[in-house]
Amino acid sequence: MEIDLNADVAESFGRWELGDDMALMPHLTSANVACGFHAGDPFTIRRVVNAAVSHGVAIGAQVGYPDLAGFGRRAMDIPSNELEADVLYQLGALDGIARAAGGQVAYLKPHGALYHRVLTDHDQASALVSALTSWPEALSLVTMMGSECARLAEAAGLRVVAEGYADRRYLPDGRLVPRNQDGALLTSPKAAARQAVRLAESGAVRSLCIHGDTPGAPEIARAVRHALTEAGFTLSSFA
Amino acid sequence: MEIDLNADVAESFGRWELGDDMALMPHLTSANVACGFHAGDPFTIRRVVNAAVSHGVAIGAQVGYPDLAGFGRRAMDIPSNELEADVLYQLGALDGIARAAGGQVAYLKPHGALYHRVLTDHDQASALVSALTSWPEALSLVTMMGSECARLAEAAGLRVVAEGYADRRYLPDGRLVPRNQDGALLTSPKAAARQAVRLAESGAVRSLCIHGDTPGAPEIARAVRHALTEAGFTLSSFA
Amino acid sequence: MEIDLNADVAESFGRWELGDDMALMPHLTSANVACGFHAGDPFTIRRVVNAAVSHGVAIGAQVGYPDLAGFGRRAMDIPSNELEADVLYQLGALDGIARAAGGQVAYLKPHGALYHRVLTDHDQASALVSALTSWPEALSLVTMMGSECARLAEAAGLRVVAEGYADRRYLPDGRLVPRNQDGALLTSPKAAARQAVRLAESGAVRSLCIHGDTPGAPEIARAVRHALTEAGFTLSSFA
Amino acid sequence: MEIDLNADVAESFGRWELGDDMALMPHLTSANVACGFHAGDPFTIRRVVNAAVSHGVAIGAQVGYPDLAGFGRRAMDIPSNELEADVLYQLGALDGIARAAGGQVAYLKPHGALYHRVLTDHDQASALVSALTSWPEALSLVTMMGSECARLAEAAGLRVVAEGYADRRYLPDGRLVPRNQDGALLTSPKAAARQAVRLAESGAVRSLCIHGDTPGAPEIARAVRHALTEAGFTLSSFA
Repeated sequence: MEIDLNADVAESFGRWELGDDMALMPHLTSANVACGFHAGDPFTIRRVVNAAVSHGVAIGAQVGYPDLAGFGRRAMDIPSNELEADVLYQLGALDGIARAAGGQVAYLKPHGALYHRVLTDHDQASALVSALTSWPEALSLVTMMGSECARLAEAAGLRVVAEGYADRRYLPDGRLVPRNQDGALLTSPKAAARQAVRLAESGAVRSLCIHGDTPGAPEIARAVRHALTEAGFTLSSFA
Repeated sequence: MEIDLNADVAESFGRWELGDDMALMPHLTSANVACGFHAGDPFTIRRVVNAAVSHGVAIGAQVGYPDLAGFGRRAMDIPSNELEADVLYQLGALDGIARAAGGQVAYLKPHGALYHRVLTDHDQASALVSALTSWPEALSLVTMMGSECARLAEAAGLRVVAEGYADRRYLPDGRLVPRNQDGALLTSPKAAARQAVRLAESGAVRSLCIHGDTPGAPEIARAVRHALTEAGFTLSSFA
Repeated sequence: MEIDLNADVAESFGRWELGDDMALMPHLTSANVACGFHAGDPFTIRRVVNAAVSHGVAIGAQVGYPDLAGFGRRAMDIPSNELEADVLYQLGALDGIARAAGGQVAYLKPHGALYHRVLTDHDQASALVSALTSWPEALSLVTMMGSECARLAEAAGLRVVAEGYADRRYLPDGRLVPRNQDGALLTSPKAAARQAVRLAESGAVRSLCIHGDTPGAPEIARAVRHALTEAGFTLSSFA
Repeated sequence: MEIDLNADVAESFGRWELGDDMALMPHLTSANVACGFHAGDPFTIRRVVNAAVSHGVAIGAQVGYPDLAGFGRRAMDIPSNELEADVLYQLGALDGIARAAGGQVAYLKPHGALYHRVLTDHDQASALVSALTSWPEALSLVTMMGSECARLAEAAGLRVVAEGYADRRYLPDGRLVPRNQDGALLTSPKAAARQAVRLAESGAVRSLCIHGDTPGAPEIARAVRHALTEAGFTLSSFA
């Protein structure tokens, strides 16, 4: 029984720091590295990628909309041929830095508004999948099962990795409690750990996501990892 | 006797077009592709890279300062560790798009103010060379011989390609007539072709540069290519 | 019988030139000046504003989404409080440059995807109108009559200026022929001039728009202006 | 005996927060507001300007190089006519937001690498001063006395405000201990307060600067203010 633990990293930008990537990294098996469009300057990316390589953490491209001011959280109507090129550009930039460090990009996970848009938008989901199939090596796609991009990726022969959220509360119907409602976040390491074990045991997910940009994220990651191990799971990347 | 013909391409940005890359491409053996920092959006880069691959033109990374408003022509005091990451990021972005098209980056040629800065600035030249030596494949560096970056690159075991300018007038001492002086540019295809042959026959350069961002560049390239062939040279990339 | 002639200007950016603002300016009564978010670097803006002031042309803020790569033509889901601040920032930047030249901003005309979005999107239209009502001086809003932003602006006591297009073909129902269909553009100066007179005589519009980013725009503007004068109209800004 | 207390504010950008502007504001008499080029998105600027207006704090334009990734701390060789337009653009953007809030820009203080560059660089200092003299209202310039920009500003009839640093240690010759040396910063509120009183009593400065981007800045500001009042100074803006 294997399970993966992923988190967003490299979301600092120049003078501005966000998250504690170095404290988080030892607890992860997969690192979603920002690629410079919504966050992540080249120097930050390189520092984080070096840490991922030295910890044996799989490197994923956390691609986003070209919108630093909005942190990639504002949907953009980008035509699919432009979006496809944007995705390849980000993939390539990260992969170049990863290969210079002795690693390589293993998967893609879209960020923020793009993550949500490709759950249902056919054109943008197609653009993402076309970028992945153009890529010279096989890349996995991390997303929610049942989404449009999962469907298109599977139809194209790509590996789709289902993920759940350790630190977000779920509604009875399986959707997430919206961020602007009370109780959306599970900030207690113990509660997140319990939910992580429950999701892992359900067999519905191969990867669990931790949000790295809140104080306490390293402690949550440590607790989740500990609880999963206690429950008999082996922490390992899907890649 | 082999000689290379290089020119800057992919210097459009979104709605703004610069140069006629598609008309120029068939005449080149090497294409210096802008990488998004001073010019070149991902969609433009991809379109141009696809053309380079289909014409068998070698792909070079034309890396620049992160300064769209200044087109990379305004020197920046970027610390060397940041600049090294900037160069890797640009190299990677272009290489990702190139590999998706069945090609790969074969060389690096710095752009604008960065080109001039690394002729003498030790720290920035070192950053460039460090990025090249970190790169997993061997890349050539196109620059002027005798420069600081040429010296450092050779010391690091990299291949340095000397270039001359077909369409810029030279002073008797070998330097270029400054751009703001009369007669700096050779805009007549015939004059540029004559100078190209002279430079090639001197044996001092392995590559000749044409500036792609002026009207008439494709005609100049055609004339240069024709004259070189007539003089017995084989047009071929150094890569 | 007075009629205004407006066109988009200052849409160059650094090294990239778009349109021939200096040739167009003498024919206009109102200049929609790009404000730096979708186009228009500060130096370009200043040069164009100086020309507008010296020709007695009214200065309008052509505000857009923060998207240089997309030229403001890709809709963005910007929350209304952020968009309101974006609009004030652009208005202020242009007004500062205008006042330094002895002029001032007289009106606002949204650009590209924002222009279209605020025709129907209540939140973004409200953001635009809130920015206008926060502005210390009275500004007019140039848009299509019947739009959501026209409705909100009038309700807020602002002056709304109805405009028509001299160089775009109309459908029988009053809407524009979509840009991707044949005959969407009237590129003949004579045809544009005829349509301009017809629109002006209809009384439905106070301003006529010419698109400045196509070759021949200055000739179209001259022809339109001549025909309107011949038909008895006085060319004058609404401002 | 009047003395001013200034600090840099609005240096957050979108998702990235820097400094605690709201806690700092009540202690200041002048706020150096970032204008979007090195830091400060429009929404942040507006929020901070509203706070400054409601606290009666004078608003200054903290103009910088167009370099978000470098936080304006990397010198750029911008030609003076371009830099002059950049300064006017930033001044205007801030002034527009300030006027919408019932305030206005009262002074200019360059940021980071630009601050240091104009101490000695004649061309860039001239650009700054030309922007100030073009501005329709009188603005003060905050800088170090004896600098090139102070000299040019005074020659142009502008008011120059000399400032000292409450929280930076000085060398015996009057220069600052460089940031990369031990003891460069006075992080103890008591020590900063003592130095502030000493500088104020020397009569050499009309304004004292606190750095807002370190934890504890509000406490330092409070201690400095208290000590100055105890020493008989009235805290008031120079504007």
